[in-house]
Amino acid sequence: MDLATIIGLVSGTALVISAILIGGSALVFINIPGLLIVVGGTVATSFIRFTMRDVINSMKVALKAFLFKVESPETIIEEMVAFNRIAKKEGLIALEKETPSSEFSAKALAYLSDGYDEGLIEEMLNKDILKTIQRHTVGQKIFKGMGATAPAFGMIGTLIGLVQMLASMSDPSAIGPAMAVALLTTLYGAVIANLICIPIAEKLELRSEEEQDTKRIILEAAIGISRGVAPLVLEESLKIYLSPQERERWGDRKNVATENA
Amino acid sequence: MDLATIIGLVSGTALVISAILIGGSALVFINIPGLLIVVGGTVATSFIRFTMRDVINSMKVALKAFLFKVESPETIIEEMVAFNRIAKKEGLIALEKETPSSEFSAKALAYLSDGYDEGLIEEMLNKDILKTIQRHTVGQKIFKGMGATAPAFGMIGTLIGLVQMLASMSDPSAIGPAMAVALLTTLYGAVIANLICIPIAEKLELRSEEEQDTKRIILEAAIGISRGVAPLVLEESLKIYLSPQERERWGDRKNVATENA
Amino acid sequence: MDLATIIGLVSGTALVISAILIGGSALVFINIPGLLIVVGGTVATSFIRFTMRDVINSMKVALKAFLFKVESPETIIEEMVAFNRIAKKEGLIALEKETPSSEFSAKALAYLSDGYDEGLIEEMLNKDILKTIQRHTVGQKIFKGMGATAPAFGMIGTLIGLVQMLASMSDPSAIGPAMAVALLTTLYGAVIANLICIPIAEKLELRSEEEQDTKRIILEAAIGISRGVAPLVLEESLKIYLSPQERERWGDRKNVATENA
Amino acid sequence: MDLATIIGLVSGTALVISAILIGGSALVFINIPGLLIVVGGTVATSFIRFTMRDVINSMKVALKAFLFKVESPETIIEEMVAFNRIAKKEGLIALEKETPSSEFSAKALAYLSDGYDEGLIEEMLNKDILKTIQRHTVGQKIFKGMGATAPAFGMIGTLIGLVQMLASMSDPSAIGPAMAVALLTTLYGAVIANLICIPIAEKLELRSEEEQDTKRIILEAAIGISRGVAPLVLEESLKIYLSPQERERWGDRKNVATENA
Amino acid sequence: MDLATIIGLVSGTALVISAILIGGSALVFINIPGLLIVVGGTVATSFIRFTMRDVINSMKVALKAFLFKVESPETIIEEMVAFNRIAKKEGLIALEKETPSSEFSAKALAYLSDGYDEGLIEEMLNKDILKTIQRHTVGQKIFKGMGATAPAFGMIGTLIGLVQMLASMSDPSAIGPAMAVALLTTLYGAVIANLICIPIAEKLELRSEEEQDTKRIILEAAIGISRGVAPLVLEESLKIYLSPQERERWGDRKNVATENA
Repeated sequence: MDLATIIGLVSGTALVISAILIGGSALVFINIPGLLIVVGGTVATSFIRFTMRDVINSMKVALKAFLFKVESPETIIEEMVAFNRIAKKEGLIALEKETPSSEFSAKALAYLSDGYDEGLIEEMLNKDILKTIQRHTVGQKIFKGMGATAPAFGMIGTLIGLVQMLASMSDPSAIGPAMAVALLTTLYGAVIANLICIPIAEKLELRSEEEQDTKRIILEAAIGISRGVAPLVLEESLKIYLSPQERERWGDRKNVATENA
Repeated sequence: MDLATIIGLVSGTALVISAILIGGSALVFINIPGLLIVVGGTVATSFIRFTMRDVINSMKVALKAFLFKVESPETIIEEMVAFNRIAKKEGLIALEKETPSSEFSAKALAYLSDGYDEGLIEEMLNKDILKTIQRHTVGQKIFKGMGATAPAFGMIGTLIGLVQMLASMSDPSAIGPAMAVALLTTLYGAVIANLICIPIAEKLELRSEEEQDTKRIILEAAIGISRGVAPLVLEESLKIYLSPQERERWGDRKNVATENA
Repeated sequence: MDLATIIGLVSGTALVISAILIGGSALVFINIPGLLIVVGGTVATSFIRFTMRDVINSMKVALKAFLFKVESPETIIEEMVAFNRIAKKEGLIALEKETPSSEFSAKALAYLSDGYDEGLIEEMLNKDILKTIQRHTVGQKIFKGMGATAPAFGMIGTLIGLVQMLASMSDPSAIGPAMAVALLTTLYGAVIANLICIPIAEKLELRSEEEQDTKRIILEAAIGISRGVAPLVLEESLKIYLSPQERERWGDRKNVATENA
Repeated sequence: MDLATIIGLVSGTALVISAILIGGSALVFINIPGLLIVVGGTVATSFIRFTMRDVINSMKVALKAFLFKVESPETIIEEMVAFNRIAKKEGLIALEKETPSSEFSAKALAYLSDGYDEGLIEEMLNKDILKTIQRHTVGQKIFKGMGATAPAFGMIGTLIGLVQMLASMSDPSAIGPAMAVALLTTLYGAVIANLICIPIAEKLELRSEEEQDTKRIILEAAIGISRGVAPLVLEESLKIYLSPQERERWGDRKNVATENA
Repeated sequence: MDLATIIGLVSGTALVISAILIGGSALVFINIPGLLIVVGGTVATSFIRFTMRDVINSMKVALKAFLFKVESPETIIEEMVAFNRIAKKEGLIALEKETPSSEFSAKALAYLSDGYDEGLIEEMLNKDILKTIQRHTVGQKIFKGMGATAPAFGMIGTLIGLVQMLASMSDPSAIGPAMAVALLTTLYGAVIANLICIPIAEKLELRSEEEQDTKRIILEAAIGISRGVAPLVLEESLKIYLSPQERERWGDRKNVATENA
């Protein structure tokens, strides 16, 4: 569960709502036709831009991104080093019986235990990473596209309201409220784009990068195992993927492990 | 037939029209000279930017993209694996009699049955893919260009209207309706760009990517066949191009086939 | 002569002028000081951005681009295949007497008849292509730069007008016409940028790409001739540069030729 | 301590405040709810875009970037040349006892004294540089993201204020002050983005480049030491990383050293 | 001395001033606090973005770019071909006594006369070119950054003025002049960005490209001399760097020289 996203979405929405409530009644800010044109127009153009399957898939991908966490690089490195130890002791074929934590490392192990050569393993896993990036990119594009379209439909709604108001401008005292209604769609568009669509698109991008990083660690570990690199050398080489803090934590844990041993 | 595009275009247009109708008469929103300057100006600058042949071609390409569907990657993979089986059994020359589903795979088969070597096949098919991308890019550029020009001509129309209104501002009560008319071209430009041109440009891009993906599968399969790779290995290697869902469906279908066998 | 550009420029201008005339007198739209600041400011900053020689050259290049047509790829391919036949029959030295249609193919023939080796021919012609791209890019940059500067100077003119109007706002009835004048420079800037500068910059880019394509065909043909490739194989390999329509036309013409033979 | 940043931030803020004070009371410019929605909304969307750990880390990284100075390239070059002298005289193993000024050069020395081969040293240090760039990029992205979000939330705040004002527009004399308040959030957003977030994002980018440069000097020096390059040749080759001024200073210092010797 | 820049700056400024004078008194356009906030804010953020040394250096670099001219490629080619003749006749060691026109060609000659091998010469000179590009890029970034910041501070100034005016809106007749003053900072920002900062940034970019081109000619000539290429072949190979006009002039000059001989 991705807490930061929830906190960000809830607190951002609370801020906007409280800014509305401080100024008086919130009722003036509700305009169903206005909301319909902004949300509807944004979704409709998403269907033109992408395929229906892509739009539905991207919602699933987004949800999954928020609900499940990517394995931490530390766990992955530990797991792969453990597999290396097994391969060294019992041969590559022994990896067949292992149950790795992710689908991608399962694939890597299968290639290793099937005796694929190093070049083929690299090629196959790399192609897999590329296809994953491509699929993730579609999801990011959909949310970015909605982030660009929502303000445009907000402006379209405001222009329609302005034209209606100006065309029948008989009572000057009615201008204010009519203009307030016209401006609402611009507000809707700005909030939808800046509070929801654009930040989610960027979170998906970050998630995709994290997943790629994890997969690259697995790829490199698989090549190392295939080459018969020593577990300690593999560990040293994979640890470069950790941030300084993670490396410190890693050292501490190891020390504790050694002390306890 | 591309349903998503039709649904998106129809529902988006319906939303804009209903937003207009809710506010009263739709007549105030019709302004033929305004429409002429936005649509005409956008088309005219497209002629300056590109050649006439490009503009006309791009319309055809766009129409074709919406009417015909790209072969699904599953079908392509099955077809290419079947060709590999034939090549293995009866030799590459036997591919001459096959009738593949697309022009591009026909070309690949022709090279194979003519006995071209692997490097030449890769070079020729790759050049073909590059030229296709180049042709598709022109179509996308034309729609993107119109998406950028339409709002500009909307603004030009509004500026002309404003200058005319302000220059002869004698009757204050006439300001409202005159300004409503002036704003209409901005509205036209925003709708044409955001509901039609930009989404279509992006759909064409997506279609182009799908077609490239399909062609890359065929290219890789042709190289595999030329190298004499075993059909099962080729299938395994091409399946990486499928999304996880497609791969599951593939597995299900295969199991059914095996059970029925 | 590039018809599309002329048609686009003339019809675009006609549309803007008719939109002005429909609304009444066109005189209100003429403001010499305003025109001076937009056009003058745009040209002045072009001098700061580039060298005088570049600005003058770019005008010449633009004019040339509109007056002369690039050789069609079909003509180039036919010519190069014909040269290949001559080289096969009479030796590379015989190419010395040929008069090719462009300066670039003349250079390629000179290298071939001088007996330069394949690698050197590729290197020299490639460097030539790169330098041409660099020269074309300057021209495109100048027009793109003017397309970005014109609206900025339009806004500067409008701001000057607004400040003057607001500073001496004694007679409310004079506000309208004064504001109309102030808005004119914004209109000038938008028309100059969107109807003239940006589309011409993009046409120059398209032309540059066409010329590069042509030069790449010649480069590839020269390498093929140097390698002693058979004319029919060269033709097949160059035909990939044609679009599907051009290839069909090519086939038709050939068939006619064969039938007539 | 990075003086330029402090001077820039203090003088920029002083300028904005004095511009406010010259025009009269500064009290009209203080609006706590408005400030809350701009700052709060910007921070909230940062949490959606990134992870909490990233946001907190980026603040630490930014602070560290301002408080500590990157070693000057001259110092680094002198240090590495000195290490080369030691390695030449006493062997690579002697580097073990040295205490270099940065964590990265310590790592390079450790690899050298452990007798890693040239290719491995390059690969390991290069991977380290790439990971550092990735980590720095997140920090820059967070500040750039806030620089883009702050004006958006400024606009959202202004739209909310405008709708509230227009919806209850009974007393014309109250329009002015209400609109002043509405405009405040736009002002807050513009100041936060342009005076704080965007410049800091760019300073972080510059710092990251400086650090990369320093690390590249160390990497190249380590490869040179591993290859057994002569100290004078190494010095000559590393000096290319200095700017002309730094090179002059270097020459002067060296001359003084020689004269004193 | 770069005439085009001077002409552009002077005529652009003259145009803006005359547009102001035509409309009446220029005094309304002078507002010292407004100028201070735009210029001061732009400079202050430059200090945050870069280091003080970078800002001061960039001013020097800009001045130097306008005062000194880059050697024309023709001169460079002639000089390098002459050096090649000397090297052929008297050996590479003879280049030691030559005094080339630029620091970079001096460096190339020093490497040649010191007997460095071809690969090392290429590596060292290439690194030098890359470092020069990096240094130039900082200068361009500073001016581009000021071109983006000036309009932002112009807007900040206008917002401050608007809030002050609206907060104390008692006398309607005072609105006009107060708003005129508020708009002035926007005007200042637009003029500073579009007439000064952005064009100068682009001129610096162009200059940097010219200098790179010159250095690449010297680099290629140095490699040729090191390889012992014949002077005539070197001349032919370097002439590709000339534009068609320059090549014609080159031919004319040569012919004159031959005729006179």
